[in-house]
Amino acid sequence: MEHKSLSALLQSVENYLAQSELKGEPAQLYAPISYSMEQGGKRLRPMLTLLSCGIFSDAIEGAMPCAAAVEFFHNFTLLHDDIMDNAPIRRGKPSVFRKWNQNIAILSGDAMIVYAYQLLEKAPTELLPRLFNVFNTTAMKVFEGQQYDMDFESRDEVSIEEYVQMIDLKTAVLLSGAARMGAIVGGASDEDLDHITRFADELGLAFQLQDDLLDSYGTEAQLGKAIGGDILEGKKTFLMISALNSLDECERRELASLHQRESLLPEQKITRARELFDKADVRTATEQRIKFHFERALEALDALSVPMERTTQMREFAQSLVGRKK
Amino acid sequence: MEHKSLSALLQSVENYLAQSELKGEPAQLYAPISYSMEQGGKRLRPMLTLLSCGIFSDAIEGAMPCAAAVEFFHNFTLLHDDIMDNAPIRRGKPSVFRKWNQNIAILSGDAMIVYAYQLLEKAPTELLPRLFNVFNTTAMKVFEGQQYDMDFESRDEVSIEEYVQMIDLKTAVLLSGAARMGAIVGGASDEDLDHITRFADELGLAFQLQDDLLDSYGTEAQLGKAIGGDILEGKKTFLMISALNSLDECERRELASLHQRESLLPEQKITRARELFDKADVRTATEQRIKFHFERALEALDALSVPMERTTQMREFAQSLVGRKK
Repeated sequence: MEHKSLSALLQSVENYLAQSELKGEPAQLYAPISYSMEQGGKRLRPMLTLLSCGIFSDAIEGAMPCAAAVEFFHNFTLLHDDIMDNAPIRRGKPSVFRKWNQNIAILSGDAMIVYAYQLLEKAPTELLPRLFNVFNTTAMKVFEGQQYDMDFESRDEVSIEEYVQMIDLKTAVLLSGAARMGAIVGGASDEDLDHITRFADELGLAFQLQDDLLDSYGTEAQLGKAIGGDILEGKKTFLMISALNSLDECERRELASLHQRESLLPEQKITRARELFDKADVRTATEQRIKFHFERALEALDALSVPMERTTQMREFAQSLVGRKK
Repeated sequence: MEHKSLSALLQSVENYLAQSELKGEPAQLYAPISYSMEQGGKRLRPMLTLLSCGIFSDAIEGAMPCAAAVEFFHNFTLLHDDIMDNAPIRRGKPSVFRKWNQNIAILSGDAMIVYAYQLLEKAPTELLPRLFNVFNTTAMKVFEGQQYDMDFESRDEVSIEEYVQMIDLKTAVLLSGAARMGAIVGGASDEDLDHITRFADELGLAFQLQDDLLDSYGTEAQLGKAIGGDILEGKKTFLMISALNSLDECERRELASLHQRESLLPEQKITRARELFDKADVRTATEQRIKFHFERALEALDALSVPMERTTQMREFAQSLVGRKK
């Protein structure tokens, strides 16, 4: 490839997504899709697809349809998840089901899945069966992850390993699928495919755990939304589960029911949760776990059969994602 | 193929669907899918796929993955439509969102789309790009049809041709996509592909219009659910639009608002609507339109380049679907 900086690569993703915009009638079907895609975000998944392709090949354009397909799929999951979570805001704007209505949000999301597959049609024909297989397998795992996430809401106890398995399915697997598709287009060997897949999977775990951490210990700018959302929802995150595991019975019960206490203001709940998190030293535990997965990610990159310099940009990208708190 | 009767063919569809059942964890994701697929129905779309393949080839087994993919997709649309329509019952049993909950219904439906694509992976590899393209195009049109259907609910006036275009997208296009995929697997020429697609599209229109007719003039056994549902919802069906077009202003207003009249029992609304339908003679108009589309369907079969006897079973099948009221 003409070697592009990360920001130039991001721009090429944005251009491709803009040119892939779905227009047409009925407007109520297509307008929410454009709205959802225009909200931007980091375009993390398509970036991974292109960077992964670029490790193995200088011609990364062929990976663009896969990159776009994965991004449409990701935005579909956000659209439907917002209905399920009754979340009014997405990236600072009304979520689709609030701006339009629930039925329109369900149907537009459905159409986004199929449109992702329509983009996939544009991938190199001879690779289509393999790419299709990765995309399908990945998508099913994302649904499994979302269902486990919903299951965990109504469960009293969730173990750390169950939690990590859930975020692996719900978040990391889509990153690894994105990277794997890029590597397939780039012509990677089977061994390299497995390494790059493992890299993106471990990176995804580190990324999600860092997101958990920033909810309690980050700034709004780092997190991209208001701090403490997980605490106010009583969400069983890595921090919450770790704290519940190590606090004494009395504080454990206090923390578990904190989000339901009507006498406390949101700010007070967040402050108190953080005190209890500090007491259990979950910040250190989480940082260690992030480091663990991030290092495993880098080890997977080291294992690739390509010259080290071909992975420089991917390392830079990984650092920009998970290096934020370091 | 070993020539199978229609009932033997249906049995082979059921067997394939049963062996394609998705099992696994999390149960809340997969159990609603099995529940939805086990509800049966006529398996109209997979039958069309297999019969269409059988016109061109004696080896119809290769079309089975497409047949199953289309049936999963169809059942997904029912699952999500039931949420959108707030419909408590599907084929005599609680709809998925009533039996479980709305979030589970949204997510299971999403997974059914992707599973349809996973089944499609099993189609002959060399045909995959073409089959994938037909499947995608078809699915997008179904969503457009569903959105028009929702749009029409809040519109005062819908023309007959707008209505026919909507049911074409929402219902007929999936039948024609099913038949087209079967014919592709069967090795049909491009011209024959267009004929068989047109056949199934016209058959689909006739089938849906007959469904409209049976809602007012059929028996519960013929319709498969309680008579008069469209009338009680005030749905702008072919009969309703035709009647509104030809009644005088006073009766027109009465018919348009009949479903909202709180002083009338459901039975009284149905009886009165039927009186007004009779006065406007919409039964004859609808029967003529059904006949029109059914004859065009048969003409499309006549245009195929194959010996007449290869289409015998498809004709028999078409008759069994739309011949019910003749």
